[in-house]
Amino acid sequence: MNSVYASLGTTVFETMSRLAAERGAVNLGQGFPEDDGPRDILEAAARATLDGPNQYPPMRGLPDLRQAVAAHYRERQRVDLDWQREVTITSGATEAIAAALLAFIEPGDEVVLFEPLYDAYVPMVRRAGGVPRILRLQPPHWRLEREAVEAAFSDKTRVVVINTPLNPSASVMSRAELEMLAALCVEHNAIVVSDEVWEHVLFDGAEHVSMLEVLRDRTLKIGSAGKMFSLTGWKVGFACGAPALMDQFAKAHQFLTFTTPPNLQRAVRYALGKERAYFDAMRAGFQRARDRLVNALTAEGFVTLPACGAYFVSIDLPASGIAMSDEAFAKHAVEHGVATIPISAFYANPGAPALIRLCFAKRDETLDRGAEALVRAKR
Amino acid sequence: MNSVYASLGTTVFETMSRLAAERGAVNLGQGFPEDDGPRDILEAAARATLDGPNQYPPMRGLPDLRQAVAAHYRERQRVDLDWQREVTITSGATEAIAAALLAFIEPGDEVVLFEPLYDAYVPMVRRAGGVPRILRLQPPHWRLEREAVEAAFSDKTRVVVINTPLNPSASVMSRAELEMLAALCVEHNAIVVSDEVWEHVLFDGAEHVSMLEVLRDRTLKIGSAGKMFSLTGWKVGFACGAPALMDQFAKAHQFLTFTTPPNLQRAVRYALGKERAYFDAMRAGFQRARDRLVNALTAEGFVTLPACGAYFVSIDLPASGIAMSDEAFAKHAVEHGVATIPISAFYANPGAPALIRLCFAKRDETLDRGAEALVRAKR
Ligand SMILES: CSCCC(=O)C(=O)O
Ligand SMILES: CSCCC(=O)C(=O)O
Repeated sequence: MNSVYASLGTTVFETMSRLAAERGAVNLGQGFPEDDGPRDILEAAARATLDGPNQYPPMRGLPDLRQAVAAHYRERQRVDLDWQREVTITSGATEAIAAALLAFIEPGDEVVLFEPLYDAYVPMVRRAGGVPRILRLQPPHWRLEREAVEAAFSDKTRVVVINTPLNPSASVMSRAELEMLAALCVEHNAIVVSDEVWEHVLFDGAEHVSMLEVLRDRTLKIGSAGKMFSLTGWKVGFACGAPALMDQFAKAHQFLTFTTPPNLQRAVRYALGKERAYFDAMRAGFQRARDRLVNALTAEGFVTLPACGAYFVSIDLPASGIAMSDEAFAKHAVEHGVATIPISAFYANPGAPALIRLCFAKRDETLDRGAEALVRAKR
Repeated sequence: MNSVYASLGTTVFETMSRLAAERGAVNLGQGFPEDDGPRDILEAAARATLDGPNQYPPMRGLPDLRQAVAAHYRERQRVDLDWQREVTITSGATEAIAAALLAFIEPGDEVVLFEPLYDAYVPMVRRAGGVPRILRLQPPHWRLEREAVEAAFSDKTRVVVINTPLNPSASVMSRAELEMLAALCVEHNAIVVSDEVWEHVLFDGAEHVSMLEVLRDRTLKIGSAGKMFSLTGWKVGFACGAPALMDQFAKAHQFLTFTTPPNLQRAVRYALGKERAYFDAMRAGFQRARDRLVNALTAEGFVTLPACGAYFVSIDLPASGIAMSDEAFAKHAVEHGVATIPISAFYANPGAPALIRLCFAKRDETLDRGAEALVRAKR
């Protein structure tokens, strides 16, 4: 049995969704939208399935889809990708992150990560043989401070993992922060695995800067059709980066999942044809939902943190007059009818701030019921 | 960069399919059926997509599908599984194998494998930190010989990887062989990762014995909906085994792909409702195709090996009067209009027998054109 996994539990997202289902609680825990993505994308998938073929597509993905991914990032961001050599389709962003870490880490390499972090990162780094060097960002701004970042690098640093917009802090990394990090990577000959799955979920005028814009040759950027189009179950991800990185990445990918369902790939290709208006409407819808939830909570004395990226917002427990730990309050809240995620799930080490994360990609009625349950839990 | 991948090329299946497409050659290389699976399964997938939800299903898979997998193996084989604790749905059999190796191997553990072997196994074992101990099986019967197997085990053996029916040899392992292996695993406290994706593709009365039948508590058995239902692109796999193994397996799975598209899971659940007649017809169809191809080839002086499991048959090059190596002949054949797989792709070490593997899951016309191209290549 492998010792990295021996000490691990089941991911909190799974556990919370199960608890919510068992107790009939409102689920503001695991991050997925209550409403499925656009009907026309579902219809495209149904058609693609019926038309076939449903056999192995090329290992790096369907050429049409890879072209569409490159075109998307060319038009929507300032990144020019050669679709043949610089884009690979994966079975979700999680697979892309796993493949990247397996490809880039040689046992003993140090890997810099920033806390709070997605719960998969550290076990994956360790299973790949990497030595995590975890730097803690501080609320409410979660900024990368040059001196602290510099101190986290060493001679052995080969990989840096970032996530922007950052889940669960709902912050975005600025161009200046990314440039500071890029300079350190060049200096230390390190590569960045940049998890940008929330790149389109932005509020209050926040702007996404891709790590590919500032460190073109040393970044493997990861995107997610599931997050872009509210189809989290489809598990269609995009890995983008320079040919030298991509060639290594593809070798790991070919022996992890080999390829991704062609019918879903064709539907995502269709989806990428959507105009800017689609993304604007998605953002506006989520922002309305966020404001509804935050307003309901602040009216009842809850204090929430700023939330400008990804569809999550956190409650500050002490500021809200709640003396419990995040884990205790999350357990307590689910008894009162609402599943949430305690922020410590995003910390590999003890001492997380006392925050609980709420997913607001839900219908109004669900948000209202969730807020009511939180109010009951607070009493 | 990780050193395991640094020396690897692209998988031969991918390369051969690309060559076939570029040259307009008939593709008897990569193993996938030319005709998509049953129309009613495609319709079930289209319906499941339109009906939704298309969000994250549970990490171990939809309960309905896991129940159907357990029922399938209960009725079709002699294996009784507790669907809740002993079945996990994966993003294809490749992901299942990767997750199993990452879960069960601790760096330095020895892993026994049998050559010929699927090209993913050895890199995966090595990337998981395992030390491969590869035992070579001999044509034409490819039997496990007790003394040789015993000699491959050591104090450090923790995992054994088998594949039955065995691709590319098209042989099946007998109950006696599996029992011999099981006794050694008990003696050495080893686990078996049993790749049984070809369990339903059997000819000439060959019978599949699952490793789960003979080593219930130490086997993780892997099945594949893609192979069962001729939908290789869907990448829906099944991992089955005792709770203690499954719990470890699930921890690796949750950080590799986390979950598998729910719409495809629902369609596979529907597909598993198919009666024995479906599997009988599938086998009969493939057997007819095998016979058509083998007859066309033997009429022209080719000598083929027995083929009773998986939809592959091999040509014995020296016996067919061809003096080239398998790789040279495969290259030569693709110039003459047919892609095949040189058997050395299934050997981690030099000295493979001079065989080329043909996939016969194709339409009559394709098989005939493939045979004609092989005849031209032989001249
Ligand atoms: C793999 S389920 C987690 C989904 C998600 O991105 C989140 O809730 O943070
Ligand atoms: C991953 S493509 C290989 C398909 C297959 O099982 C084979 O051709 O052996």
